[in-house]
Amino acid sequence: MKIGADNIEINEVAPRDGLQIEPQLVPTADKIAFIDQLSTCGFRRIEVTSFTSPRAIPALADAQEVMQGIRRDPDVIYTALIPNLKGLERALAVGIDECNIVMSCSETHNRANLRMTRAQSKQQLLDIIEQAQAHNLPCNVSLSTAFGCPFEGDIAPEQVLALSQEFMAAGATGITLCDTTGMAYPTQVTQLCAQHIAHIPASALTLHLHNTRGMALANALAGWGEGITRFDAAAGGLGGCPYAPGASGNVSTEELVHMFECMWINTGVNLNRLLDIVKDLPALVQRPLSSPLLTAGTRLQTHPAPAWLAEHFAA
Amino acid sequence: MKIGADNIEINEVAPRDGLQIEPQLVPTADKIAFIDQLSTCGFRRIEVTSFTSPRAIPALADAQEVMQGIRRDPDVIYTALIPNLKGLERALAVGIDECNIVMSCSETHNRANLRMTRAQSKQQLLDIIEQAQAHNLPCNVSLSTAFGCPFEGDIAPEQVLALSQEFMAAGATGITLCDTTGMAYPTQVTQLCAQHIAHIPASALTLHLHNTRGMALANALAGWGEGITRFDAAAGGLGGCPYAPGASGNVSTEELVHMFECMWINTGVNLNRLLDIVKDLPALVQRPLSSPLLTAGTRLQTHPAPAWLAEHFAA
Repeated sequence: MKIGADNIEINEVAPRDGLQIEPQLVPTADKIAFIDQLSTCGFRRIEVTSFTSPRAIPALADAQEVMQGIRRDPDVIYTALIPNLKGLERALAVGIDECNIVMSCSETHNRANLRMTRAQSKQQLLDIIEQAQAHNLPCNVSLSTAFGCPFEGDIAPEQVLALSQEFMAAGATGITLCDTTGMAYPTQVTQLCAQHIAHIPASALTLHLHNTRGMALANALAGWGEGITRFDAAAGGLGGCPYAPGASGNVSTEELVHMFECMWINTGVNLNRLLDIVKDLPALVQRPLSSPLLTAGTRLQTHPAPAWLAEHFAA
Repeated sequence: MKIGADNIEINEVAPRDGLQIEPQLVPTADKIAFIDQLSTCGFRRIEVTSFTSPRAIPALADAQEVMQGIRRDPDVIYTALIPNLKGLERALAVGIDECNIVMSCSETHNRANLRMTRAQSKQQLLDIIEQAQAHNLPCNVSLSTAFGCPFEGDIAPEQVLALSQEFMAAGATGITLCDTTGMAYPTQVTQLCAQHIAHIPASALTLHLHNTRGMALANALAGWGEGITRFDAAAGGLGGCPYAPGASGNVSTEELVHMFECMWINTGVNLNRLLDIVKDLPALVQRPLSSPLLTAGTRLQTHPAPAWLAEHFAA
């Protein structure tokens, strides 16, 4: 196995990427309490909300109240999804530390998800980057369907790299390679990350993985081995994709942190504190939710030996 | 990422390792039909049953009927778990291609699982190997808790290697390193596999992984990178461990095959045929069962674009 960096950063995206598709509306106060708890866990970034039209994503209509309501830890970068210049204005009014802006690598997914052509999206993103720069606001570009599109299939890695380079040249401060519907596989992750790292500093790159087909941790391992040090993840594996109904969502933060901490890689995240939060997620989202790691316990959380053993082996 | 062999072998263990803990008894005829279907998938081995005392594992009391009832494909090695000389006798009477014999690397798990000390188990296994050799029957040793014990915690890799070497010297034809309760993590898998391969041919080694903490595919990737070419897996991820209630079971065969086939590694397994079998598993085990890969589809199983797209972008 190729060994990566000793220290990695975790970006917690559940408040935005997870809650945006939850069927039950989460009250604003509960969101704020959730984010405040996450702030105590040691994440590098927390994606708080999305400054999108309340009509497009009713679940995040309270973006400004949430942003204003949370307690800001100076060691955490509070980021938000910014879909357009109007959203940027709303975000600037309440203060965010970083923008996250999104388009898809594939034409069909971009049209289905953003209702624009890729050309239109790209122009919009370049406009946001320009405005953000004018306000000294870092701007990260998340490239959806970088590892495959649920409508079009495979995406040429050169196409993804060309977009990444164009946005970095325009002033983006980072690129997130998003496996939007869990199509990434380890050798592909290796290839796309290696191609990117040849042109873009590893410290500006993030992997955003989904566990749709069980490969999220294997893909994280492959990316880490190539030099990736930044990972998006969602507590409890919240999130998902409307185009793969029933499919599981983002890589679960607790499993990602647990794996790397088992390997003595420092994630900065306090796993026990995180697991306490995950325990309360079903109450937050008002539906049953299972976290395999929570069920099983961390790997060295041992069990007492069965009581009958002592007697059975006494003779 | 370290790249492994182009060809790997999958051993399907669901009929034994999965069905043995199912709460509902599966009728003998259904087991036979299940195994006959698995025989058409391209597995190298199928672990058919266990010739254990019907009192210990009532679910597999029909071991002899099942073994006699199945259609034997000459390209498949039909193996069975053999707990003792009596079981070997019963198995020899109906003909098996290979024995699988088991003990734990940790004392407490061995006592809890097998009701014997490790010293007693080791002697019993050596006796079985001797008898099996007398009948020209290959004999594989599965070492439970090789990556950690749910009662004792970490297990020294040297201790596992010593057991492996002792059994190989005594005539065992293979060693399976079992992550019985999903405690393995990638760098540990790398280390234990590398240590083993320095002393035992890789072709004699098998990895048996559980997905309890989400790391099964990451661990498979790590083992493959070290030279491991044989993997146990259970269709639908059946199986589990009574000491980690609610925890998920064996690595699911469909996810393991899917990952390696995505990487253009030949598993020999026809994934579509396997998925058809997985689809019918809930009927077989008489309980709901979700297979994430079945839900999501294989990675290039694309979806039609939403109908509104054409109209929306017509102008």
